[in-house]
Amino acid sequence: MIKVIMHGCNGKMGQVITGLLREDAGAQIVAGVDPFTGIANDYPVFANIEDCDVKADVIIDFASAKAVDALLAYSVKRQIPVVLCTTGLSEEQLEKVKAASEKVAVLKSANMSMGINILLKLIQEAARVLAPAGFDMEIVEKHHNQKVDAPSGTALALADSLRDALPDEYTYVYDRSQRREKRDSREIGIQAVRGGSIVGEHEVIFAGTDEVITFEHTAYSKAIFGKGAVQAAKFLAGKPAGMYNMSHVIESSC
Amino acid sequence: MIKVIMHGCNGKMGQVITGLLREDAGAQIVAGVDPFTGIANDYPVFANIEDCDVKADVIIDFASAKAVDALLAYSVKRQIPVVLCTTGLSEEQLEKVKAASEKVAVLKSANMSMGINILLKLIQEAARVLAPAGFDMEIVEKHHNQKVDAPSGTALALADSLRDALPDEYTYVYDRSQRREKRDSREIGIQAVRGGSIVGEHEVIFAGTDEVITFEHTAYSKAIFGKGAVQAAKFLAGKPAGMYNMSHVIESSC
Amino acid sequence: MIKVIMHGCNGKMGQVITGLLREDAGAQIVAGVDPFTGIANDYPVFANIEDCDVKADVIIDFASAKAVDALLAYSVKRQIPVVLCTTGLSEEQLEKVKAASEKVAVLKSANMSMGINILLKLIQEAARVLAPAGFDMEIVEKHHNQKVDAPSGTALALADSLRDALPDEYTYVYDRSQRREKRDSREIGIQAVRGGSIVGEHEVIFAGTDEVITFEHTAYSKAIFGKGAVQAAKFLAGKPAGMYNMSHVIESSC
Amino acid sequence: MIKVIMHGCNGKMGQVITGLLREDAGAQIVAGVDPFTGIANDYPVFANIEDCDVKADVIIDFASAKAVDALLAYSVKRQIPVVLCTTGLSEEQLEKVKAASEKVAVLKSANMSMGINILLKLIQEAARVLAPAGFDMEIVEKHHNQKVDAPSGTALALADSLRDALPDEYTYVYDRSQRREKRDSREIGIQAVRGGSIVGEHEVIFAGTDEVITFEHTAYSKAIFGKGAVQAAKFLAGKPAGMYNMSHVIESSC
Repeated sequence: MIKVIMHGCNGKMGQVITGLLREDAGAQIVAGVDPFTGIANDYPVFANIEDCDVKADVIIDFASAKAVDALLAYSVKRQIPVVLCTTGLSEEQLEKVKAASEKVAVLKSANMSMGINILLKLIQEAARVLAPAGFDMEIVEKHHNQKVDAPSGTALALADSLRDALPDEYTYVYDRSQRREKRDSREIGIQAVRGGSIVGEHEVIFAGTDEVITFEHTAYSKAIFGKGAVQAAKFLAGKPAGMYNMSHVIESSC
Repeated sequence: MIKVIMHGCNGKMGQVITGLLREDAGAQIVAGVDPFTGIANDYPVFANIEDCDVKADVIIDFASAKAVDALLAYSVKRQIPVVLCTTGLSEEQLEKVKAASEKVAVLKSANMSMGINILLKLIQEAARVLAPAGFDMEIVEKHHNQKVDAPSGTALALADSLRDALPDEYTYVYDRSQRREKRDSREIGIQAVRGGSIVGEHEVIFAGTDEVITFEHTAYSKAIFGKGAVQAAKFLAGKPAGMYNMSHVIESSC
Repeated sequence: MIKVIMHGCNGKMGQVITGLLREDAGAQIVAGVDPFTGIANDYPVFANIEDCDVKADVIIDFASAKAVDALLAYSVKRQIPVVLCTTGLSEEQLEKVKAASEKVAVLKSANMSMGINILLKLIQEAARVLAPAGFDMEIVEKHHNQKVDAPSGTALALADSLRDALPDEYTYVYDRSQRREKRDSREIGIQAVRGGSIVGEHEVIFAGTDEVITFEHTAYSKAIFGKGAVQAAKFLAGKPAGMYNMSHVIESSC
Repeated sequence: MIKVIMHGCNGKMGQVITGLLREDAGAQIVAGVDPFTGIANDYPVFANIEDCDVKADVIIDFASAKAVDALLAYSVKRQIPVVLCTTGLSEEQLEKVKAASEKVAVLKSANMSMGINILLKLIQEAARVLAPAGFDMEIVEKHHNQKVDAPSGTALALADSLRDALPDEYTYVYDRSQRREKRDSREIGIQAVRGGSIVGEHEVIFAGTDEVITFEHTAYSKAIFGKGAVQAAKFLAGKPAGMYNMSHVIESSC
């Protein structure tokens, strides 16, 4: 049974993971960290991570960017691997993450869901065969009407994944209404749809002559990110220092 | 048996309709008009419409914008209703179309396919119920990589159809990447995907809280536009002067 | 402010509606009925509906079939319209519903979501135009892996809706693997997909020559059924005796 | 420039490939074989393959099952690799194919399109990760209303591909309407939709808790099968004796 410290245990995702691990035979939360301590959990909660002296195999983090510095210091000092799910880190913090990964195992991904991470890999394989065969690549993402950024970070990660798989330079195109010209084959169009309470849909389209292949991911709730984090934690416990991401978790489960 | 003059008979769509009417028990081509006379058809072909003296019930037009003026004059003079499928008419020509419709039956639509025209009507009914209930409306269209304009004329016609059905003012949004703010409920997002040889796909999305309704049309070949034109011609033969569109054809077939 | 009695207030849907009406300016729950009284609500709860003497404009019912008889008697006696959302009623009970509707307003629908009910209507209009034009009609539904019946009641309601709209006799086909013959045009294929935790997806497909029109509804949570019930309740309050369904609610909101 | 013998050159697919190779800088047809010789091609056509004495690097076959025996004998005798696209071979003929492949390169696949063949491979990788993580697998295919068999051979090939990738035994389920029980996790549901002139759509669905991943392939014309055959021919020219399939072509193009 893997022992987990839940960093940001009283936030939305922290509580999702608390629920998931209550019924998990392979991992349990032995301590939580959260400045807000108003929720009654069945594990001890510390307002400051420095005060947490409970023995653990891995930390899952779904807190806020400002708490990441103390988290990394603790992770290195106590030599406990950390699954880092907080987004919006500064360049400086990303440097600290990298430095920490030289001393302890750190796992970080743009999107924690199993489904998106398997797609990130499979669309690369598809791109390597289909792009040279003349297929055009386009991405459509759909999210709720409260989301302020577009395209989504996950859509960009999917596009980057395509780009990384191919030798040519590709340009991202977000708007085709302001020009009157044919599509260039070195473009990746990325379109964002916003409406209602859509949790997140991503479509990667390979359009060729008379055939189209589409890879689609639909999220029905944010719980999938918690589930992915738990899988990552189980994978990371016991691993040597280094920078990991969800593709390592997926490969290990094949 | 309805007698048809095929205006633009040796172009791509003219030949499609020639093929369709060869096997149609309800209508036949009795004459064609085309400056290019190199194709052997089983009906007489005239280089100039003025020279066409064959008796007919209706004209189907899939020629070019520059031929429309002579076509309208002929249609009025000979009192033969005309199904006008040529696009890209100038403002001046649109005025002439209107003037002609006061003297002879003229049918003109943004898209001749049965499917798109039924959608134009149904999405209005949906919008009248769903928009007041808080659903957001978005359109995604997909076309081949040779198309120079975006969004497609049909996507804009679908958006106009939504807008016409509702009392509020709606703005069309083509690009969400250049701003960081929540979607306004008085927007209709229109996204264009380009790739491969996609003939034409249109998706009208109504996204509400925890439910999404999508109306989708997929065209597999341009033959559907010819088929729609034939249905329109059968409807228009014998009709009094006036401006008609495909919604009249659909209503008559209910 | 419409006064609602929530019948089955401590069940899953009863609590969903309790949540919805807590923030609704147009309706409020003034009393609940539930044999299980262990939940603290901000309205009085009665174990037996007979004991509920609170004045109200409408009853929303999401209880169980066995509680329906007493509910109908109460509704008639007190002359309070009832939105009946409990499913699985016996033939005998359906007769009682009919009898009650002669004395009080009763609303009953196969599916309470706004989206499905607007589709039930729009696919009829589409069918009236497209079926005579040679389009084939097929339905695909997708639900979670715990659902024991197939196809879903909603898929059957959609098929019935198509059938009711057309003069010809149509047969429902659930399995094409056991025969080797072409599709008959008087069939409606209904296919059921089961997997994961899919809440409910319904696709109504009109497939013609070279064009396909698809109407799709996706549910992301069961809350949409509660929302529909609330809309129905607002509509039903004050209505004369009679049998109503969601299509009346939709028409009234146009 | 690879020299091709087109076996069945005057059939529908033979003419498609004739058109494709007329504009291909990497391969050309040097001779055709067809009992029907009424079409004027820009290469010599032989009614009997035995009479074809033109030097060639590879044979593409889109003829009929009854012509396969002579084809295989010719291919072995002349030592010309053969891309075998004819379907519906008898068990006896499949044995002959196997025997021939010991003496000359033979390539045979259930579906010649690039897109389907890349999917056959990618869904295996997805299955190896997602099935152990509790995702259910289902397939939906859509074809025109003239198709007599269901499910399609390609849908079965996709299902077999999933099954081959996993250690457990899976059962194919074509009809869920005749039973009232929960889905077993060791099932693969395969549903067939028939309507209009749909060329071929295949959807492989991985449905998990709160997330769904879908792989979709849409064919817009049968030309894609010709294109795949040409790619296969280019790959196969010069290869040693052995049995090949489209996955070898795909791997070589990565």
